[in-house]
Formats: sequence, structure tokens, C-alpha cells
Amino acid sequence: MALIVQKYGGTSVANLDKLRNVAERVVKTREDGNDVVVVLSAMAGETDRLIQLAHGASDKPVEREYDALISTGEQITVSLLAMILGKMGYKAKSYLGHQVRIVTDAAHTRARIIDVETHKISAELGKGHIIVMAGFQGVDKDNNITTLGRGGSDTSAVAVAAALKADYCEIFTDVDGVYTTDPNIYDKARKLHKISYEEMLELASAGAKVLQHRSVELAKIYEVPVYVKSSFNNGGGTLVTKEDKDMEKEIVSGVTYDRDQAKITVVQVPDRPGIASRLFTPLSDRNIVVDMIIQNASVEGFTDLTFTVPKKDMKQAQLILDKVAPEIGATRIDYDEQISKVSIVGVGMKSHAGVASRMFAALASEGINILMISTSEIKISCVVESKYTELAVRVLHDSFGLDQRS
Amino acid sequence: MALIVQKYGGTSVANLDKLRNVAERVVKTREDGNDVVVVLSAMAGETDRLIQLAHGASDKPVEREYDALISTGEQITVSLLAMILGKMGYKAKSYLGHQVRIVTDAAHTRARIIDVETHKISAELGKGHIIVMAGFQGVDKDNNITTLGRGGSDTSAVAVAAALKADYCEIFTDVDGVYTTDPNIYDKARKLHKISYEEMLELASAGAKVLQHRSVELAKIYEVPVYVKSSFNNGGGTLVTKEDKDMEKEIVSGVTYDRDQAKITVVQVPDRPGIASRLFTPLSDRNIVVDMIIQNASVEGFTDLTFTVPKKDMKQAQLILDKVAPEIGATRIDYDEQISKVSIVGVGMKSHAGVASRMFAALASEGINILMISTSEIKISCVVESKYTELAVRVLHDSFGLDQRS
Repeated sequence: MALIVQKYGGTSVANLDKLRNVAERVVKTREDGNDVVVVLSAMAGETDRLIQLAHGASDKPVEREYDALISTGEQITVSLLAMILGKMGYKAKSYLGHQVRIVTDAAHTRARIIDVETHKISAELGKGHIIVMAGFQGVDKDNNITTLGRGGSDTSAVAVAAALKADYCEIFTDVDGVYTTDPNIYDKARKLHKISYEEMLELASAGAKVLQHRSVELAKIYEVPVYVKSSFNNGGGTLVTKEDKDMEKEIVSGVTYDRDQAKITVVQVPDRPGIASRLFTPLSDRNIVVDMIIQNASVEGFTDLTFTVPKKDMKQAQLILDKVAPEIGATRIDYDEQISKVSIVGVGMKSHAGVASRMFAALASEGINILMISTSEIKISCVVESKYTELAVRVLHDSFGLDQRS
Repeated sequence: MALIVQKYGGTSVANLDKLRNVAERVVKTREDGNDVVVVLSAMAGETDRLIQLAHGASDKPVEREYDALISTGEQITVSLLAMILGKMGYKAKSYLGHQVRIVTDAAHTRARIIDVETHKISAELGKGHIIVMAGFQGVDKDNNITTLGRGGSDTSAVAVAAALKADYCEIFTDVDGVYTTDPNIYDKARKLHKISYEEMLELASAGAKVLQHRSVELAKIYEVPVYVKSSFNNGGGTLVTKEDKDMEKEIVSGVTYDRDQAKITVVQVPDRPGIASRLFTPLSDRNIVVDMIIQNASVEGFTDLTFTVPKKDMKQAQLILDKVAPEIGATRIDYDEQISKVSIVGVGMKSHAGVASRMFAALASEGINILMISTSEIKISCVVESKYTELAVRVLHDSFGLDQRS
């Protein structure tokens, strides 16, 4: 008998019929002799309906109230699923953030979980109950309702699994696992049976949208095995787990891309100490996350600084930088939104030489010019013109033989 | 500077525009120098949407989950109103049942308030906040969400007003006060400026639907002055308060009617001790509330027992009584759904003689036959054939001169 945490996303609970399918799956897990804690998102569309109401009330809704409003979405799905399980003859109880309690910091709309109090859930599991928990929400120490940000229910599920020392956590979603690349871009994409936390983190930060980044961080810290599965079939899914020998045999596990970045180049800036700080501090003050940063070697006391920011923050960055540029003596600033970041990820890189040059050669073979390069221990990212995105993904996928393994 | 509790019902908060109207009214009260606690219902229609979802999930939803589900309706309106007030430049905070906390017993869907913890609200009021509180909901001692039953937001408002020792409680609704009778039935109906708690209670139990019965009971116990007002105009409304000399001058304050009762007569039952108990115990065991009960004088050891039950419970009562009747030796049972209860209410009755006979004479003058009579200290009710309902109301209204006072 195992303790299993199952999380179902918005499309899996979009209406009563889909909730009944979820109930069938939960009951099957229970009948197989397991204790089950279910974590749910809001019905697909419901959160958007609530966000629309909030923006009808105020162009800049008070965040505390925004969280109180949108957390109702999960409250609806958990009580409905508990009712459906009740009708099927099972003892089930819904739990909200304040009832568990899921304690977070007070950063409304993007709170971080500090503690999951498990004694109530453990007691109810002991009485044979199926627990149905609202994802995405928590309470701060003063019992104000908080939410964890988009995709936060993944994080709720992993946090609960960690706190309960569950055997594993299953994330049911509308895809049936983690692929070597986006199947919508390349039909040779192959489902991975297993992937390491580190690779999953790099894939997530490089643009893959299967699991919320923070949920993988938590899973890694507490070593919670996470299965990514489809709620619409019975496929085996992908296991996200600790790095092992098998994984190291492969050089590259996945190819991913991110079209949501824009490139900014500060041209001919005097190469003095403190210049980078003068540029980036005002950006971070406005919560603009700078991703890749490249500084060329200095020529005659001048250098070029190139970096990427999320496309959605480009306008605001422009307002800030147009003010800062003359102050630091830059000649001009170039902005380019027509770029994509293409990345290869794999723990095998650590023990294989020549991976980067193989990547560059593959891109060159198709005449794709590389605009920026950045590397980490298990990831290499290249910025290319966005029109080459799909081509770059396909040539890299082929080049590293990602379609050929079982 | 006063402390005022304002409650707005579902039609007053039905959409964002109406919530903005509520906000204007709240702000005006605040700008007049008062502390304000606002208690809200769910948007009109929202509770019904949620109930429909619940019945889609289960024909007999688990009550704990039912409460968790439908309490989201109020959570939506309170957070939206707090956002709107925030946008208008006012500090406002929403509070849910578990945040206040409103502690109730564990009787889901019909919980009774045990305690209202006021320290948080008092502290926030002290900081200049407008408090926006979810009506209708509370939590039991284990933090399970409970609801107070239809109309429960009135009770929430009065309970909070009592706990905070508010100067008064304003109930904003879609009517602009308490009338001498239903204006839809008689256009001579007149708005009352003032009415006693006792009269309001009798009117409510006799069929008037302006305020929830329990909210008036609470107001009476804690002597909370309650104004019933329209949220769609600025009329003065009706003050529900302690009995005073003025009220005693009038014999009758209102005429009301109830079409939701059915009459049952158990014919020729042996007049032995314990017979009434044999009849009524199985009914109360099934939560069927018996209203009027009349037993005729015994003739040759036999008597007839007549009583009324809610029309909706008639079928179930029939199933029960058809089994009990032969056991107690009754000749037969007659059922009659074509009846109405017409009542006159007034604290003045206590000091005026001949009120009942004047009522009977008025009904007789129009040829209306009286089927049952029951009296209390400040109410006289007559059951008549339902086709006479409107005529009976009008003749009584005229007979006691209810249209003639200022």
C-alpha cells in the first residue's frame, strides 16, 4: 500500500463529466490499495472568468482581494469532486488552503509555500478518507488567502507529497509526458520514460511548459518522484527523478525553444566598473527578469552589452533604458523582438566533450546564424532569428539522434 | 461618529455595476463620518448556478461539501467590492467566515451562529478600514465551512452588529421597507416607519418574506436597531426596534398571508391519551413542521384533529399518516391543499379588546368561511379557502384602517 498524491489540471476538471472521469481514476487508485490525496486546479476557463471580473472591478485590483477572488475556482472543483466520490460510495473530504493549512509567505499572487501542516490530512487518511485538496492556494500567517501564481497547483501537489512523505506524485495533464521536443513542431519527438530533476528544470526555464518550474525545484529538494501523465489515456507517462547512470549515457535529453524573449544591445558603452549595475538595477527594480547576458571583449575602452528580457516587458525596459543610456554614455540601443532561444539539455553533457561544437555545426549546416550563446552545466542555448526556430529544433533533434532511442 | 453594519442582498450585488452602486453608498456612509462594516450576499443567480452544479455532481450532495461549494458565491462579491472600494481610494478588506471568525454549530446548510470573534474586525476598523464581510457563511469549531440557510446573510449582518455593538444595522434589499400588507396584492398597502421585533417575527412566521426570521430573533435578543431599506433609492425604510408607546396605539400593524400551507384532518379518532403524540412524532422525525393544530371537543369518545403542514411536505406526510391512521383507529384522513392562512399582527392587540371578533366579522361580511383559527398574544390567523386570499387581505386591511395612518 502506497500513499499517492495525484494532481489534475484545469482541462482535466473542465466540467462535471470530466470530474467524473477524474473520480474513476482516483477510485481505481484507491481500490488498488493505495491512500490517495488529490490536488485540483480550477475548471478550465473559470480562473479567466474570475480574472475578467477582477479587471472589471479595478484596473489594478488589490492583490489580497485578487487572491481571495480567484481562489474560489479551486474551491468549486474540490467540493464537487468530493461530492462525486461521496455518491460513488467513498468517504471523501475537500480541504482548502486555510483548512490544511498550506502556510505561505504574504507575497500575494506569487506566494511561496513555507509549510504544509499535515496532521489533519494524515488523520483523515487514517480514517479511510480520500482527501481532495485545493491547489494553487494557501494562507499567510494572518490567514489571508494567497495564491501561488499560474501553474501553482503543480507546486501544491509536490509540496503536499513532500510533507506527507508520499511514495510519489502524479501530475495529470493534457499531454502524456515529457518529450524530446515539442511534438507540434517536430513529429519525430519521442516521449521520455525518465528524466532528471536538473534536466526538467533546465527544460522548464528554457521554455518547455509541462511542469511549473518551482514544483520541480521542490521535487528535487525533497526527492519526490513525479510522474507526468495524461488524464485522457492510461499511458505510462514520464518519471521525473534523481539522476542515474542511464541518463548519463545520453548526451542530450531534449531540445526546446522559447519565443518569448527579446534581445537588447547597448552599443559602444564605455567599459568602466559599475556600468552593468547602472543598466540592470533599474530593470530588476521593476521586476524585469534579464535572462542571457553577454558582454563582448573591450575594444579601445568600449564594449557592447547584449541581453534578453521577456517580450512582454520589452516596452517597459525600453522606457527605462532610453533614460539610462545617455547617462552611461552609450552610443545607442538596439531592440530586436524577432528572435528565439533554442536550447539542448542533458546531464550527459557533463561527461561528453564537444557537445557545443556539434550544436553549432548542426545549426551552421542549415545556414542558421547564431546571435547569442550561453551555457550551463547541462544546457546550451543559442539565440537565433525567430524565423529559424522550427528548423533549428529539427536539425538539433536529428543531430543528437533523439528520435532513435527506445 | 457611529458604527454601522450594512447588508446588501443578491439583487443589490448582481453585477459589477450594481456593486459600484453599493460602493457609492458605502463610501457616502463612510464620508459622513461613520465606521462601516458591509455584509454581502452572493450575486443573484450565482447561488443557483452553484446549486445546479452540486446536483449535477450528486442527487444528494454531501452537506459539508455543499457548504464549501455554495459559500464561494459570497467570497466573489466581497473581494470584488473590496477591489472597487480600493480603486475609489478607500482602504477596504474582505473577510470570510473563517477569517472573522464566524463560529457556528456543525449543522451544515442550516448552521446557527455561536460566536462572532470581533478582535480582527475591530482592529481593522481602528486602522480606518472598511470591512467587507461574507454573509451566509461561517466555520464550525473544526474549521469546516458552514452556511446558515437561505436568507442567512441577514442573520450574519445582525450577529456582527450585535457582536460589534454597532449603533444600527441596515438591511438593503429590493423592497424599500416593511408594508402593512403585500403591495402586490393591495395597492393601499402603506410603508411602516417603525415596527417592533415581536411584530416583525410574527409577520415573518405568518408568511412575510422581508427579513429572515432568525435575524429578527437575534436583533430582538441583542436589541440591535434594524433598518430595512431599498438599495435602489434613498427612502427612509422601516425601523425594526423595541416596542414603544406609539406602536401600542395601533391595534394592527400588518396583514399577511401564507399560501404554502396544506390542511390535514384526521377524522373520528378515539380520544385517548397519547394519540396526538402517535400522530405528530413520526412527522417531526421526518422534519415536517406542523404549524396550526386544532382539536375539537370530544363527542362520544371521538374527536377530529386538524393541522397544517408546509405544502412541499404534504406528500411525505400523507405516506406517513396513511400508515399511522389505521393503527390509531381513525376513520379517515382528509387532505386539502386549497387553503391559505391570513393573519393580522399588532402589539396593540394586547391592550385592545374585540380584535378577533372584528376580524371574523370582516371576513364574514364578504362571505369568507373560516376553516381554522389560531391566536397568539399579538397575532390572529385564520385559514380560509385559498381562492379568498386576496379578498381576505383587502377586507382586513380596510377593516383595521391600515391605509389611513401617516
